[in-house]
Amino acid sequence: MSERVLVQHLQARQDGPVSVSGWVETVRDQKKVQFVILRDETGSVQLVNPATRPAEDGSEQDAGALALTTLISELSHGTFLTVAGELKHDERVKLGGVEIKIGALDVAAAALAETPIAADSGMDKRMDWRFLDLRQRRNNLIFRVQTTLEHAMRSYWIDRDYIEVHSPKLMASASESNAELFSLDYFEDQTAYLAQSPQFFKQMAQVAGFGKIFEIAPAFRADPSFTSRHATEFTSIDAEISWIDSHEDVATMQEELLATAIGAVADKHGAEIKELFDLDIVVPTVPFPRIPLAEAREIVKARGYDIPRTDGDLDPEGERQISAHVLETYGHQFVFITDYHPEIRAFYHMRDEKTGLTKSYDLLFQGVEITTGAQREHRVDVLITQAAEKGLEPEHLDFYFDFFRYGAPPHGGFGMGLARLLMLLLGQDSIREVTYLFRGPTRLAP
Amino acid sequence: MSERVLVQHLQARQDGPVSVSGWVETVRDQKKVQFVILRDETGSVQLVNPATRPAEDGSEQDAGALALTTLISELSHGTFLTVAGELKHDERVKLGGVEIKIGALDVAAAALAETPIAADSGMDKRMDWRFLDLRQRRNNLIFRVQTTLEHAMRSYWIDRDYIEVHSPKLMASASESNAELFSLDYFEDQTAYLAQSPQFFKQMAQVAGFGKIFEIAPAFRADPSFTSRHATEFTSIDAEISWIDSHEDVATMQEELLATAIGAVADKHGAEIKELFDLDIVVPTVPFPRIPLAEAREIVKARGYDIPRTDGDLDPEGERQISAHVLETYGHQFVFITDYHPEIRAFYHMRDEKTGLTKSYDLLFQGVEITTGAQREHRVDVLITQAAEKGLEPEHLDFYFDFFRYGAPPHGGFGMGLARLLMLLLGQDSIREVTYLFRGPTRLAP
Repeated sequence: MSERVLVQHLQARQDGPVSVSGWVETVRDQKKVQFVILRDETGSVQLVNPATRPAEDGSEQDAGALALTTLISELSHGTFLTVAGELKHDERVKLGGVEIKIGALDVAAAALAETPIAADSGMDKRMDWRFLDLRQRRNNLIFRVQTTLEHAMRSYWIDRDYIEVHSPKLMASASESNAELFSLDYFEDQTAYLAQSPQFFKQMAQVAGFGKIFEIAPAFRADPSFTSRHATEFTSIDAEISWIDSHEDVATMQEELLATAIGAVADKHGAEIKELFDLDIVVPTVPFPRIPLAEAREIVKARGYDIPRTDGDLDPEGERQISAHVLETYGHQFVFITDYHPEIRAFYHMRDEKTGLTKSYDLLFQGVEITTGAQREHRVDVLITQAAEKGLEPEHLDFYFDFFRYGAPPHGGFGMGLARLLMLLLGQDSIREVTYLFRGPTRLAP
Repeated sequence: MSERVLVQHLQARQDGPVSVSGWVETVRDQKKVQFVILRDETGSVQLVNPATRPAEDGSEQDAGALALTTLISELSHGTFLTVAGELKHDERVKLGGVEIKIGALDVAAAALAETPIAADSGMDKRMDWRFLDLRQRRNNLIFRVQTTLEHAMRSYWIDRDYIEVHSPKLMASASESNAELFSLDYFEDQTAYLAQSPQFFKQMAQVAGFGKIFEIAPAFRADPSFTSRHATEFTSIDAEISWIDSHEDVATMQEELLATAIGAVADKHGAEIKELFDLDIVVPTVPFPRIPLAEAREIVKARGYDIPRTDGDLDPEGERQISAHVLETYGHQFVFITDYHPEIRAFYHMRDEKTGLTKSYDLLFQGVEITTGAQREHRVDVLITQAAEKGLEPEHLDFYFDFFRYGAPPHGGFGMGLARLLMLLLGQDSIREVTYLFRGPTRLAP
């Protein structure tokens, strides 16, 4: 493995012997010369071979040269190979100003001649052949951006002494509600459920005295919807912290976290995102704007959109409208909507004693909700009352109520969908584009 | 939230007003003076209050002081509270040389008087009340060690341009074998399976041209065993890399990764691990010793243990014996056992052309297997043949074979159980001790 040179390092390297490995992007098989564009995980490079064709007059020829020419002629798109050759800098070569004259060519695994998808194939077809779809430079970049985004978030937390937890995805009870739960048979007549969120277990870390925790892990929803923002399995980014005064402390952490992480993406991938997505990454300033829900609804109404929902919440168009307003007014892509009525929030959201509204927020990014955050109710008697108001059966929640019977700190946190964040950051129109292998009601494979 | 001072910062702070938050470890309620040991996520501190008891002669007293004394007398172990008071350095105070004279005491949530577990409660009882069990300093430290370990591993990979993937846990087919799979109903008459490992999907990243990837995520096994090393849900640490020459390249990466990560743990937590576990963290030197399986069996036999297994593999006692040999001979806690026969390895392990043995290894740490690593077979025709030899039904694997029909690089990787590594590193006798919330055949809650 030691001798392989990554394509990104070729330009800085002196002319001479070199070995590269990757897959065939294109072959231009001209009569006198053959060109292969080889790609690896870091870039593309032009390989060249002076073709040796069978002599028409039957005169003797170099058998090795003939064989190499034939081998190159028969290369399929996607074939993985290693080439040893001579590196030469040549400013006429558009692709990086270097070229490799092929010495030896070793095919690792040849691709079938017919590629089942093309660059313009539909989304569903592309998902069928996701491993080929992911070879596109844009798609590769998406997952490098994801990597940077997550590492920057984790580093933010680690620098501040957060503990990373891995909460169980198999549960004996529902995590938040009984709706949209996958269930399975679990040994001798038990039923297990797949966690919709780590909500209860990240709260458990607070009563365990962990102080500040985070988790990035899969969550599952048996949600039959087919929108561009929903999946049955998604990566959830969660954090929970103790000794807060209100949801405002959670919002402050989240906005710092996002500004840091998006800043890291802009630094590391900004130029390439510009090239491949024609997009400028905007690193958000802190604090993000905050607007109480009631005021947001007034603003949306004044803009001429009458929200049809009667429960007092925003709908997707309302979210787009308020985000447009914020962008126009404050030049900001993010906005915290605050002060939701308890009726449209989970039972465990703490309520403000004066207003009766929840100490919670939704975070919108470019018109789409990416997060719900809140201070949680840590007083067990209040919590039980609020659960009862929602008609939840206390026997299923008793294990959760127990958490708060032996002492609990004030605490709160947020959950954020990784794919939604990434979709919006890279200007994509569906989370399918930014999910390694999407899972939906009719999509379980590959 | 801004005014709270963490206990670890008290020593360096000047005498004067201070506010701390945490939970009650102990109360010593003496007639003339009351002491409370308060713990937060960073340490413990002594709070003091000169008791004001009701005067026996009925003379007038400070009502506030009386109330505070009563409040402290009634504090339960585990009650979370905030105390504002006066910090005073006093070298006679054993606990950190500081003390806080209580000014105001605000209870966040009072604990029930009876704590359901004690320090010496059995494992099962402690798991029932895991959120209380986790308050122990040792248990808290376990998860801070876990956090450091994981972050060091991810940083190692990120520094080397690995891509982080989140592979799906819901699958249409089995991931490796049909044994020990959880299945669930998935919308209109579909069946989904929970991934036993990300094996196929991390290989998919290689044919997608990702080059080097990692994932730390849950995996699921419907395994009815009750050993100290098995769980139905566990955190799997996985990496996969392209363009390797053999499994040796994977082993080299893994030993560097582990040396780096264990080094980070020793640096950050070494002293505290020594204090709480009476254990010196040994940072392993690289390379780790390597011993071919056949030779390992000879060594074990020469030590007087005759392995009863007839399949040529080691058994748990054989693993302990060979590890003891390596420790005695090389002073090393790790050993790679290599050159396994194909009959005892997965069908996708590549075989050495000369020996017919697989290009794979097991990594043992202190006598316990923590990893299997291998070069994978990337030639689809060979792969199909090897699957057929194992009696696997090709129709269930065709989606996987497809990965290799459109070009593939030589590649390999490993999977490692986080809990096993942590258990051994901290000298624990069960993965239950180092798992946030353990899941086993009879354990689904809390």
